[in-house]
Amino acid sequence: MHDFMIIGSGPAGVSAALTAQARDLSFLWFGSPDLSIKIEKAERIRNYPGLPDVTGEEMRRAFQQQIKDAGIRITPERINAVYSMGSHYAASAGQKIYESKAILLATGIETAKPIPGETELLGKGVSYCATCDGFLYKQKNIAVICTSPKFNSEIDYLAGIASALTLFTTYKGDGSPASNITHHLGCPSEILGTDRVQAISYQGQETPVDGVFILRESISPAVLLKGLEMQGSHIQVDRAQKTNLPGCYAAGDCTGRPYQYAKAAGEGNVAVHSILEYLSSKVL
Amino acid sequence: MHDFMIIGSGPAGVSAALTAQARDLSFLWFGSPDLSIKIEKAERIRNYPGLPDVTGEEMRRAFQQQIKDAGIRITPERINAVYSMGSHYAASAGQKIYESKAILLATGIETAKPIPGETELLGKGVSYCATCDGFLYKQKNIAVICTSPKFNSEIDYLAGIASALTLFTTYKGDGSPASNITHHLGCPSEILGTDRVQAISYQGQETPVDGVFILRESISPAVLLKGLEMQGSHIQVDRAQKTNLPGCYAAGDCTGRPYQYAKAAGEGNVAVHSILEYLSSKVL
Repeated sequence: MHDFMIIGSGPAGVSAALTAQARDLSFLWFGSPDLSIKIEKAERIRNYPGLPDVTGEEMRRAFQQQIKDAGIRITPERINAVYSMGSHYAASAGQKIYESKAILLATGIETAKPIPGETELLGKGVSYCATCDGFLYKQKNIAVICTSPKFNSEIDYLAGIASALTLFTTYKGDGSPASNITHHLGCPSEILGTDRVQAISYQGQETPVDGVFILRESISPAVLLKGLEMQGSHIQVDRAQKTNLPGCYAAGDCTGRPYQYAKAAGEGNVAVHSILEYLSSKVL
Repeated sequence: MHDFMIIGSGPAGVSAALTAQARDLSFLWFGSPDLSIKIEKAERIRNYPGLPDVTGEEMRRAFQQQIKDAGIRITPERINAVYSMGSHYAASAGQKIYESKAILLATGIETAKPIPGETELLGKGVSYCATCDGFLYKQKNIAVICTSPKFNSEIDYLAGIASALTLFTTYKGDGSPASNITHHLGCPSEILGTDRVQAISYQGQETPVDGVFILRESISPAVLLKGLEMQGSHIQVDRAQKTNLPGCYAAGDCTGRPYQYAKAAGEGNVAVHSILEYLSSKVL
């Protein structure tokens, strides 16, 4: 079993991975080989010590080169759920399960607010994972809300299972040639239902559906790992980056403001030092 | 009056200065144009995101260039004491006084332990500042304990005032041509006295003195600013880098482990964001 897993590849994840590698920890790092869309889109970064007045793209390239030179590999999986197993953690990516003694959440911050009804109906027809829950909707009517073309293969997969798919994208293009897709450019205003999803409301019209898949870049930490103590939309941590769950640490934007590269990098470093302490306390 | 002052020019100070400049704050930054002896002496830094596998000297040069390009100036003063004036702070460097609305302590960590008797007899014959207290010892016997040749001018100044000066240095050379100096290579084991300094003990021998000057790179934060809450040898701060004193923040090694560049840079950044909030709350 690995010592720990890092979830997220923004600056907090980069910093944690570099420190973990320097300290010879065995770890898995889940994220995107492109690191972070937020870094990439930053116009100009003037206050990160060591990278003077860079564009986001330049910072990303510097981080990517440094990771590569250090011999660190990113596992390009999207983690859908994390489970505390008492003495260790399990993370699922579709059908695959990864395990480790400790875990570091560096998931960033989801700026989009949840859709009304989303949180209430999660697990009752609302799902974040096509691979996990798609099979439940064979020959049924579903809606898919998608925020990035990178989930096109998930849309294809769901279109192959469902009888009819109402697709909402926040970007142009429906991304799939399937004939059973009705595409809207926009986002539904509400997911309707009491005990289970019943319909979706869009521009004043209700469309009956059996399930709703929401495919977003990041998942709220409280949804990702049940039992995690939050402070509003942020994970509650102490100065050692420790959460309320033993062996679970968090770093970067997901722990709160300021949303700054230096702060995220610092917290990723501190979290790994805390994990080192945690692991050695478990050995004794 | 300036918005705030930064005391210390390690990575926490560098990060704070860059962010303060980016946010158009008016600030004074006290430290060494060489930044930090600890950075300079680091053999290799492998886990700082953005500066891959650099020597300490390379990191220092990168930071220095970035500060210069950003148009930031370091005031090369050694701050001897900081005073909370109720609604603002005053910092003294010898006879000069600087004032600001808020203050950031980024003083690093003093690895040398205090000499037995030092803390107890501070202000009762023990002093850290030749310029401030030298005049008290006209034609008296004093001891000077010095850890760096950079204080040679202070030694000269004290030798000109005292009748006899017993000098202890932790480096070779007595640094002064004055004829009333007795030089020892080493450090006294104890400063003796009950209500006031009476003597100094070195290699089992006691030498009677009226005062002891200790000239060190950095001063313990609790000595620098009276009333500052400590946790052992570290300044107690919360996640916003706030100390127990309103308007006083701390960042870097002085707030505790891990003693890491990324952690220090992150804390310097966070502290300035907290100071921005503090300053805007004072305006309302």
